[in-house]
Amino acid sequence: MKEFKKSRRNFINKAIAVGGLGIVAPSLVFTAKGNSIGVTDEQKYQRPKVLFFDVNETLLDLNVMKKSIGNALGGRPDLVSLWFTTMLQYSLVTTVGNQYHDFGKIGGAALKMVGLNNGVVITDEQAGEAIKPILSLPAHPEVKEALILLKKEGYKLVSFTNSSNKAVESQLKNAGIYDLFDDRLSVEDVGKFKPHYDAYNWAARKMGFESKDCMLIAAHGWDVAGANWAGWQTAFVSRPGQQLFALANPPEINEKDLLLIAKQLVKL
Amino acid sequence: MKEFKKSRRNFINKAIAVGGLGIVAPSLVFTAKGNSIGVTDEQKYQRPKVLFFDVNETLLDLNVMKKSIGNALGGRPDLVSLWFTTMLQYSLVTTVGNQYHDFGKIGGAALKMVGLNNGVVITDEQAGEAIKPILSLPAHPEVKEALILLKKEGYKLVSFTNSSNKAVESQLKNAGIYDLFDDRLSVEDVGKFKPHYDAYNWAARKMGFESKDCMLIAAHGWDVAGANWAGWQTAFVSRPGQQLFALANPPEINEKDLLLIAKQLVKL
Repeated sequence: MKEFKKSRRNFINKAIAVGGLGIVAPSLVFTAKGNSIGVTDEQKYQRPKVLFFDVNETLLDLNVMKKSIGNALGGRPDLVSLWFTTMLQYSLVTTVGNQYHDFGKIGGAALKMVGLNNGVVITDEQAGEAIKPILSLPAHPEVKEALILLKKEGYKLVSFTNSSNKAVESQLKNAGIYDLFDDRLSVEDVGKFKPHYDAYNWAARKMGFESKDCMLIAAHGWDVAGANWAGWQTAFVSRPGQQLFALANPPEINEKDLLLIAKQLVKL
Repeated sequence: MKEFKKSRRNFINKAIAVGGLGIVAPSLVFTAKGNSIGVTDEQKYQRPKVLFFDVNETLLDLNVMKKSIGNALGGRPDLVSLWFTTMLQYSLVTTVGNQYHDFGKIGGAALKMVGLNNGVVITDEQAGEAIKPILSLPAHPEVKEALILLKKEGYKLVSFTNSSNKAVESQLKNAGIYDLFDDRLSVEDVGKFKPHYDAYNWAARKMGFESKDCMLIAAHGWDVAGANWAGWQTAFVSRPGQQLFALANPPEINEKDLLLIAKQLVKL
């Protein structure tokens, strides 16, 4: 199985996506010398047995946060991307240092740092207030329909987030999509943030599946990269402001919203 | 020794820095209830046996880069911090995914992502050109004098960077400070970026010292946090635009430039 997996990855690396989007299932592969060779059926993608969904940005719309965070930074919505990236960076800083803190706490610390670098002193209380709206984000418009479609199709659906267990419970309930998931996992239980290899391994084992049977669906280049490195299939939701990491393998599916991804998965 | 180390850390966590800067050696510690207790001599800081210096920003002035990167992003110097943070984030993304790429390559990929998110398409070649100035940055004005002072004082000086071996050789030679170091280490040899716990452990072993004998001197909150979690002493160079991470222990020394730090180290 491993060999097939490896050759499939090499195949993907060399493949040219059909139309740039959609399922990356080219009918031709180009060799190093530019010659095309046929692709056999066994190289096509298998139906995953379990779908893991990233939550923030992937399912839920972070735009509300952008306002509260921008306001905390002294009316600088242009600094929101820097804040979010700093939060992601420091989640990994703690992970590689064998530390763990609640994602929200790291977000607060990151907000204070970005503030200080831009002449704005933010207290712990103010940071907490600015981040609070993350608990009541609306789902992106197509999300509910997509999840219902996948559920009807027999897929096992699991949310898998860097948010804490408590936070994601509020998030999914407030967005009205809590009951659509068979299970809800947080990296809090493994103590290492995505995209740590161990986080995906833990999630697969927790759900009782092998890595090859898992697919991660996420709107972050780093998340699909990490899941792929852990042997999972991946689907990238190319929401505005989100990009793939050029030094990672491309995802099996690449679509601009979740419903389009669901429709690809229904076909498998 | 470990117990002393631990109690010293707890002590630091509770300590109030004298004047906010300088060596954190308060004469009073406040207990949870706000009572003050005396501090014994054995809790004071020991002279480190080896000083590790971060390179980018800590020793070398990245301002030249800011121009070339800002230009590549379509004349957006305001996006330079986002680029640098994205590069740091993705260096850890690769590390936690058990991958490794040259720091410059990750910088190029990060630049392309930030570009795309802001409507600017950057080719690999353009990214390489934009990042090239990192090889010929000038040292910050006080760096050479500080290094010479520490060398005369008998300290063992080692550079320790996320840049590749080849890159740091150019960097230090171009800045005219190559020969001031007893050794030059790159995370390239351990395949994990700072602040991974293993990177500091590897560097200490490579130089033949125990963690407690090492001090990291860096202008990045994440670097001093990671070194501290690995059992090293730390000194933070609070250069403009650099902040400590609020969820980590404070450094032993906190000064605004390297000469001030060197003067503190001479006193030990």
